[in-house]
Amino acid sequence: MATIMAINAGSSSLKFQLLSMPEETIITKGLVERIGLKDSVFAIEKNGEKHETTADIADHSEAVKILLDKLTSLNIISSLDDIEGIGHRVVHGGEKFNDSVLISDDVLAGIIEVSELAPLHNPANITGIKAFKEVLPNVPAVAVFDTAFHQTMPEHAYLYSLPYEYYTEYGIRKYGFHGTSHKYVSERAAEMLGEPLENLKMVSCHLGNGASIAAIDGGKSIDTSMGFTPLAGVTMGTRSGDIDPALIPFIMDKTNQTVAEVISTLNKESGLLGLTGFSSDLRDIESEEAKGNERAKVALDVFTSRIQDYVGSYATRMGGIDVLIFTAGIGENSTVVRERVLKGLEFMGIEVDLSKNNVRGKETFLQTADSKVKVLIVPTNEEVMIARDTVRLT
Amino acid sequence: MATIMAINAGSSSLKFQLLSMPEETIITKGLVERIGLKDSVFAIEKNGEKHETTADIADHSEAVKILLDKLTSLNIISSLDDIEGIGHRVVHGGEKFNDSVLISDDVLAGIIEVSELAPLHNPANITGIKAFKEVLPNVPAVAVFDTAFHQTMPEHAYLYSLPYEYYTEYGIRKYGFHGTSHKYVSERAAEMLGEPLENLKMVSCHLGNGASIAAIDGGKSIDTSMGFTPLAGVTMGTRSGDIDPALIPFIMDKTNQTVAEVISTLNKESGLLGLTGFSSDLRDIESEEAKGNERAKVALDVFTSRIQDYVGSYATRMGGIDVLIFTAGIGENSTVVRERVLKGLEFMGIEVDLSKNNVRGKETFLQTADSKVKVLIVPTNEEVMIARDTVRLT
Repeated sequence: MATIMAINAGSSSLKFQLLSMPEETIITKGLVERIGLKDSVFAIEKNGEKHETTADIADHSEAVKILLDKLTSLNIISSLDDIEGIGHRVVHGGEKFNDSVLISDDVLAGIIEVSELAPLHNPANITGIKAFKEVLPNVPAVAVFDTAFHQTMPEHAYLYSLPYEYYTEYGIRKYGFHGTSHKYVSERAAEMLGEPLENLKMVSCHLGNGASIAAIDGGKSIDTSMGFTPLAGVTMGTRSGDIDPALIPFIMDKTNQTVAEVISTLNKESGLLGLTGFSSDLRDIESEEAKGNERAKVALDVFTSRIQDYVGSYATRMGGIDVLIFTAGIGENSTVVRERVLKGLEFMGIEVDLSKNNVRGKETFLQTADSKVKVLIVPTNEEVMIARDTVRLT
Repeated sequence: MATIMAINAGSSSLKFQLLSMPEETIITKGLVERIGLKDSVFAIEKNGEKHETTADIADHSEAVKILLDKLTSLNIISSLDDIEGIGHRVVHGGEKFNDSVLISDDVLAGIIEVSELAPLHNPANITGIKAFKEVLPNVPAVAVFDTAFHQTMPEHAYLYSLPYEYYTEYGIRKYGFHGTSHKYVSERAAEMLGEPLENLKMVSCHLGNGASIAAIDGGKSIDTSMGFTPLAGVTMGTRSGDIDPALIPFIMDKTNQTVAEVISTLNKESGLLGLTGFSSDLRDIESEEAKGNERAKVALDVFTSRIQDYVGSYATRMGGIDVLIFTAGIGENSTVVRERVLKGLEFMGIEVDLSKNNVRGKETFLQTADSKVKVLIVPTNEEVMIARDTVRLT
């Protein structure tokens, strides 16, 4: 039995979950927000009860100290020695890391080196790693990368059709993200089906505020919709997904934005928010559509048809599929989105019983008894994956 | 019976074909190149024999005058009065033109107005229109747009997931190209099958140096892979097709190119040329692959898998298909590309007899007797479509 801390550090936040392994039960979880700003907020759950405090927290090290102090003062654990490993989510592992890894000085240097590929994310993850290292220097720490699962993609899937030296000299290729989630749900789907993962061809739809689709053949990612960055692929909450690249100078010219501003617009003001003009939150959009809002309807149609595009592409690339998975906020909870994505997929052997679809956030089979393809809702659990890898490597 | 001139004017070229309608037979065809440069080349065929002359041709009007002079001096036609209509290929019709149209002053103004959307192409097409208008002022002329066929796309297919006002204010949307070709081959495929076009769901793969895939439901385009410009979609001879838009500032930064230079690189130095490093010509690449060149193999795998992606997407969007079409230079002639694209498509009801696939440039059925989906090679003929529309509208 081991107590493992799973950490997801943002630039001004620290999300944590303490798990008991191998039972995979949550001992506690919480979130520190507004680190380095006035009125930072520290929230932690104990026995389903939320304890929240507000104070100025200067940096991630201080946040970690407060967290550890709360764990003992609230009697969540008896001693800090109980924590046997810390697993850190790291967004980008480049081509250097194709699996989770025990963090040494060399590994940390490697993570810093690939930060260029994820300048918004890796530095924050590194801050989290350093903060725990400072406060708990003797507890082994593991890095779990969003990109690692996709490192099995074949060259023809990860190469862009660009001058080849852009790949060899600058590392320009598809990396893919949400790997921890896609790996978790694909493994869990095989368990739910009682079939060996190696025999299954799957498409996994991770649909949250960020969204990506993955083609998983025998447990290995062979393609995914996000690209060099998490901007590519399907329509997302505020991200555009794929667009004609020639639009960038046209938009710059028409709107007087710099190229960096246009990319920021594509990341933060596009997607469902841009299409609807009022919200990136699918629940708002579904309720507006129900009231007859045309823009809401079109936005949902764009969103679900782009998901269908990738489901169809990946089914084709694998010569048909055995399993289709929905996960993450929207995938687990939106009856409407699942129903629209599943419409018209009979030609690829998918038959669903829509009476089973009115469900939120729980493991569910949606296919009929005769369906060749199994259709599953699998709530994702990245923290469990982080904890599993931390146990495996420490 | 009518004699119709089909014209495709580039910035320094003029491609022509004189057709006898309704027989759709070619009376003559040819090409003027290097217009406005030293040593312009005028080439015309008569009875299968090529007549080529070199001279300085100052502009398109002069090229037209030489063309008309040759038609009579070579006794191809007895009098210029025989020419009853001129059909001009125009690349971009924006949202203004959803069909071919007789060119009036208002129409010409409209074509000029949408030039902003195709600054490399429409001005050249307009030059061709004006040159014929000057030399043959009384012969009716018709504009046939590459975009018109795709104007039937539903809003959720043509909208990008961008701020909605980019569409309403700047016309930013998917337009699609190669429409004349996709229309021709879809109509011809229905004829070859002896079935009403209205009943058929088709995916058309126009694979030339430029390449696009179209989803055609009952004769109407419902989606296509090219976008706001012809840069988007699948890998092409020198064009990248889809990439993560966030790559543009990254490439600018790494290679010290301006945004315009990067887009030019994506148009002219990417695609198969960029991947292989040695050629954009599929024949070269196939022969290098046969010799064991790894980069050639990867380039072909990239190319064919991106085509499969769109075939799968569009089959999914239509709930399965009845017909898959290959056309244009590569689609008509490359046994290798067709075989790789067709691999693994059994799950969508496609069974092909590869012994039929060793064919070049002629109408062919590739499916087996039991195949649910029909697979056709249909050589495209944009000039016939231009001539048909010219007859219809004059």
